[in-house]
Amino acid sequence: MKTLIVYAHPEPKSLNGSLKDLAVSTLESAGHEVRVSDLYAMKWKAVVDAADYGPEASSPLKVALDSGRAFETGTLTPDVRAEQEKLLWADTIIFQFPLWWYTMPAILKGWVDRVFTYRFAYGVGEHTETKYGERYGEGTLAGKKALLSVTVGGPESHYAARGINGPIEDLLFPIHHGILYYPGIEALPPFLLYRVDRITDADFPDIAKAWEERLLTLESTEPIAFRRQNFGDYEIPSLQLREGLEPAGRTGFGLHLRG
Amino acid sequence: MKTLIVYAHPEPKSLNGSLKDLAVSTLESAGHEVRVSDLYAMKWKAVVDAADYGPEASSPLKVALDSGRAFETGTLTPDVRAEQEKLLWADTIIFQFPLWWYTMPAILKGWVDRVFTYRFAYGVGEHTETKYGERYGEGTLAGKKALLSVTVGGPESHYAARGINGPIEDLLFPIHHGILYYPGIEALPPFLLYRVDRITDADFPDIAKAWEERLLTLESTEPIAFRRQNFGDYEIPSLQLREGLEPAGRTGFGLHLRG
Repeated sequence: MKTLIVYAHPEPKSLNGSLKDLAVSTLESAGHEVRVSDLYAMKWKAVVDAADYGPEASSPLKVALDSGRAFETGTLTPDVRAEQEKLLWADTIIFQFPLWWYTMPAILKGWVDRVFTYRFAYGVGEHTETKYGERYGEGTLAGKKALLSVTVGGPESHYAARGINGPIEDLLFPIHHGILYYPGIEALPPFLLYRVDRITDADFPDIAKAWEERLLTLESTEPIAFRRQNFGDYEIPSLQLREGLEPAGRTGFGLHLRG
Repeated sequence: MKTLIVYAHPEPKSLNGSLKDLAVSTLESAGHEVRVSDLYAMKWKAVVDAADYGPEASSPLKVALDSGRAFETGTLTPDVRAEQEKLLWADTIIFQFPLWWYTMPAILKGWVDRVFTYRFAYGVGEHTETKYGERYGEGTLAGKKALLSVTVGGPESHYAARGINGPIEDLLFPIHHGILYYPGIEALPPFLLYRVDRITDADFPDIAKAWEERLLTLESTEPIAFRRQNFGDYEIPSLQLREGLEPAGRTGFGLHLRG
């Protein structure tokens, strides 16, 4: 595999840092190529602004159109171009981050906001009567896989089907489906650690073993079975799921899973 | 009302900028007090790091514990203290932002990550057999209300109950429930504009009228009816919703709505 690890934690000596380090050593020992985007170490600029699109940015700024023009003319900033190149190089992407306020830290959201430009990650493909662009299973990054490795402060029961925070699979749906699957990346089931503030050094060997097992079986892991957009499951252009396709009683985000 | 507007868009001449300006003038004309946190104009630091917690930050950094200690000793950075003071001053908070990748822009997530510190927004209250801290309806910001005013690129049908992006109320649940209701803020139904890239100057008067109507009726608008944590609906400490409380067939995030 060619694996890109996108890592977002301010403390190298954190559990997130250890999991990132272990992923690098485990994958490299198994003969895989690994590149790391350590967003804190890179002092990643988290905020989209006109400076991202050079002197030709329009005024007033149009984020989508300006990012697409800069992508197509090769004039995005070097930091963003480097991340796009890494994404094109990789066949597998691992995101290592703590769950902060039920989603990714701002520095990682800013990586998405800036790297996933128009014409690269969205605004790709044609619109016809049977096709609403290339997205949700098609797109620039189709054929690649990604895994979220996420540390969570609360206990697992709070994130269960009836848990007060909401089911973890629903909390992660906007990332799995809306960010990854949208430009074509298949999302693998996440690697989740709960109640991490109570984890001690004595717990780490078991965690490390579980993480190594996930890492070494990535190629044979089935992705989350999201429905592809342009292959009959959705009305076009309303993009409503056709009646009768869902198992009885399934609603909400779960509608967008096959079978 | 005492209204804080937290505004996150890089272009003052954008639709988001116009909605923010209209909110200020409409509320002030009606006799309300208004303060604005214009995150781009303030060059808001979006990224949590050790610099947030001063020379006494622990090494290795512990984000929760360090933020709580800095909060309690009054040594958070002045930018964060100013935002906490504004939140304590306000009775109503409006968040004005574009939906980027199905959630808020990084600069606004970074406002949450840095301002909602331990002991201020979480880690508040005692844990007993009948109480799991003060959160989800209780907490530092209890009694306040907030409204999300969000611009969306796609059409409304894509965000409907069967729409491919997922229902907009589920996409916003991690913000309404996980960020706002967690420290006690009641979330009002959002003000949403769809397909905003197609909006022209000719459309703005109707939009402005609808927005003014929402603004001038905020005080009489019923909040989203989330269930409070510590008042019998949830088992403690598992925080699973007690069996039988939900309307038939309701699952997922919708479980956490009353009645």
